[in-house]
Amino acid sequence: MSSARLIIADSEHNADMLYACGLFVPDPFIAVELNGQWHGLFSPLEVGRAQKKSALDQAHLDSPWRTLAENKNRNGLAAIAASFLEEHKIKTLQVPAQFPFGYAEQLRGWGFEITPADGAFFPDRAVKSEYEIRCLAKAEQLTRKSMQQAEIYLADCSVGNDGILRDGEIGKKVKSADVRRVIETFLIQHGAMPAHTIVACGREGADPHNVGHGFIRANQTIIIDIFPRLLATGYWGDMTRTYVKGKASPEIRKLYNTVRSGQDIGLSMVANGMDGINIHKAITEYFDQQGFPTKNIRGKQTGFFHGTGHGVGLEIHEAPGISTKSDILKTGQVVTVEPGLYYPSLGGVRLEDMVVVRENGCDNLTRHKRQLEIE
Amino acid sequence: MSSARLIIADSEHNADMLYACGLFVPDPFIAVELNGQWHGLFSPLEVGRAQKKSALDQAHLDSPWRTLAENKNRNGLAAIAASFLEEHKIKTLQVPAQFPFGYAEQLRGWGFEITPADGAFFPDRAVKSEYEIRCLAKAEQLTRKSMQQAEIYLADCSVGNDGILRDGEIGKKVKSADVRRVIETFLIQHGAMPAHTIVACGREGADPHNVGHGFIRANQTIIIDIFPRLLATGYWGDMTRTYVKGKASPEIRKLYNTVRSGQDIGLSMVANGMDGINIHKAITEYFDQQGFPTKNIRGKQTGFFHGTGHGVGLEIHEAPGISTKSDILKTGQVVTVEPGLYYPSLGGVRLEDMVVVRENGCDNLTRHKRQLEIE
Repeated sequence: MSSARLIIADSEHNADMLYACGLFVPDPFIAVELNGQWHGLFSPLEVGRAQKKSALDQAHLDSPWRTLAENKNRNGLAAIAASFLEEHKIKTLQVPAQFPFGYAEQLRGWGFEITPADGAFFPDRAVKSEYEIRCLAKAEQLTRKSMQQAEIYLADCSVGNDGILRDGEIGKKVKSADVRRVIETFLIQHGAMPAHTIVACGREGADPHNVGHGFIRANQTIIIDIFPRLLATGYWGDMTRTYVKGKASPEIRKLYNTVRSGQDIGLSMVANGMDGINIHKAITEYFDQQGFPTKNIRGKQTGFFHGTGHGVGLEIHEAPGISTKSDILKTGQVVTVEPGLYYPSLGGVRLEDMVVVRENGCDNLTRHKRQLEIE
Repeated sequence: MSSARLIIADSEHNADMLYACGLFVPDPFIAVELNGQWHGLFSPLEVGRAQKKSALDQAHLDSPWRTLAENKNRNGLAAIAASFLEEHKIKTLQVPAQFPFGYAEQLRGWGFEITPADGAFFPDRAVKSEYEIRCLAKAEQLTRKSMQQAEIYLADCSVGNDGILRDGEIGKKVKSADVRRVIETFLIQHGAMPAHTIVACGREGADPHNVGHGFIRANQTIIIDIFPRLLATGYWGDMTRTYVKGKASPEIRKLYNTVRSGQDIGLSMVANGMDGINIHKAITEYFDQQGFPTKNIRGKQTGFFHGTGHGVGLEIHEAPGISTKSDILKTGQVVTVEPGLYYPSLGGVRLEDMVVVRENGCDNLTRHKRQLEIE
C-alpha cells in the first residue's frame, strides 16, 4: 500500500476537513488517510485540544516532521506533509478538488503523484446520518424561531404616512438593518452564527442576493432569508419567507400565490431517485404558464433565475443541486426547495423550506406557515 | 499579450477575491485580470449587484461563455473561465497558491499553461491604505467596546461560595457562554460578525484555542479573545485581555506582569524594517529569563508556544508573521502583538493589541487598559 488521501485546510471553512476531524480549527493543518486510519498533524497550539476532542484516529504534534522538512530546506505545510508521507513510504496521493494548487505543485516537485478527486472527496457527506439530520433539524428550528422574532417585530410596527414605524419610537422609520438585528441577536444568543441575513424590501428584493439596506416600506414585498450555522456542530439552517407589512396588492398576491404553488410542486416531487432537473423544470414551466416568464429585460434578469434548491450540511451550499443540471436525489440527503420570482416593478418573492429526502417523499424540517401579510 | 491572472472563488472567505471585487459574493465566481483590467463573470443571480457595486472594471453575465463551454461538453466554472480566456487568446495563467487544484488540472488539460503565484497574489494587500487602516481601526474600536461590555458584566457579578454569581439571579453560576453572549450580542447589534470568541477560565485557558465551555471561577485567569469581522467592509478586529474576577494570587500576578512586560517589549520593537523573528525572540528570551520557560510537559505544551503576532486585514490571519520565521515589517502593515504564557496549574494569560507599523514605531489601534483584577 503506497497511496494515501490528503487534506490541508482549516476546518472552519473547509467542510471536508471538518467532516474528517470533527473539530473547529481556525488555521490550516494536515490530515492524512493511511490504511483506513485518519492522522492529523497539529501545531503545538492545537494538538492538545485535537487529542482530546477530534474524531481523527490519531492526532500528532507536527514538530518532528517540521524538523525533517526544515533539514531538507523545505518550508510550509506541504513540506511537513511530505515528510510524514515519505516516512510512511507513500508516493501516490489523492486530494480534494479544492486542494490548494500551490501545495499540489510543491508535492509534485518532491516526487509525489497527486490527483484531485473527481467529484466529492467524501461522497457519503451528501447523505446524512440520523445524527446529522438531528443537527440540521436543530439548526432549522432555530432558524424558524428567529423568523418568528422578525414576524413579531414587524407585527409590532405601525404603518405611518412615510414608511413603517416602530411603536413607542415616534418618527423612527424601520430599516432592513433593524429587522436583521432582531434576527441575528436571537441567533447569537442561542448558539448559532448568522451569515449575511437577507431582509430586502421592494426593489431591493428583486436582486436575490441583495442583503437589503434601505427602509422597510408598507405594502411592498419583504424577503427574509436566514441561514445561520450552529456553533457547536457546524451544521446550517436555511429558510426564506416573504411578507408584506400592511396590504398586498392583487399583483403581489398573485406573485406570492404562484411562488407558493411552485414550492408545493417542488416539495411534492422530492423523493429518492428523482432527478433535481425535473423538479426545477416543473416549477419553471408552471411559472411560465401562470404568466411569470424568466427573461432578461434591458440587461436585468427577471422571473425565476436561480436554482430551485441545494444540499445543506456542513456547507450551506453543497451537493446535490436541484437546478438546470441533472442530479439524482437520494434518501438521507437534505435539500432546500426555494423557488422565487423577481420583477423590479413588483419586488421579489421567495419561499424556502429545508427537507430530508425519503424513499417516497420528504420530511419538512422547516414546518413554518407561509403567510404573506403582517398587519 | 497572451497571459492573464485568474481567481475562481467566493469573496466571503477568499480575501484575494474580496480585494479584487470589493463585494461579498457567497458562491464562487470568476475574476480575470486582462491587460490591467479586472473582469468578473457572474451568474444571473449576482450580476446586477456586481454591476452596481463591485470594484471590478467590468462585470459580465457569465451565460455566453457558459454556453460556449457547454457546446464543447465542458462543465463548471473552470470551463466558463476557459471559454472567456480562449476568446481573448490567453494561453498562460497565473493563479493564487490557494487556487483549487481540480480547476488547475482541468485548465491544463485544455491546453493552458498555469502556475501558482509564488507568495502573495496581491503583495500590496499586506500594506494597508489609509482607507483600510480606518476600516481596521473601526473594527478594533468596536472590539474594544465589546470587551468593555464583558468587563461591565463581570464587574456586576458577585463572588459566591462556589463559582461567581450574576447579581439578581440567585444561584445562577456564570459560565463562559454567558460572557460570550454579552460580547457577541453587542457585536451583532453594531454591525460586526463575531467568530468563535474565546472566554476561557483557569485550565481551559491553558489551551490557547479552547474557546471555553465551563464555569467562570473566582480568582482564576479568564482569557477573553475577541475577533469580529465588520459586515460592511470585511475587515477584522482582534484583541485579547486576561482578567481575574476577585483576587489574583501572587503567582498569577507575576505571570500577568511578565506577559504585560513581554507585550511592551514587542510593542516597542514594531517599526518599519524590523524583522518579526527578532521581536519574537526578544519576548521568548525575556520569558525564559523570568523563569517562564517553554517546554513540553508530559505531552502538554506549556509556556509560550504560539507566534507573537500576525497581520490583520481582510483575513484575520494574514501576512506578515511575527514568529519563528523571518518576515520584515513594513510601514502600513497592521499586525497583532499577543504574547501569552500557559501552564495548566496557573491557567493562561494572553494580551493582544493591534497596531499599524510606522516608520519609527507603531500606532496602537486598540488603546485599552490592561488591568488584571475585576472586583
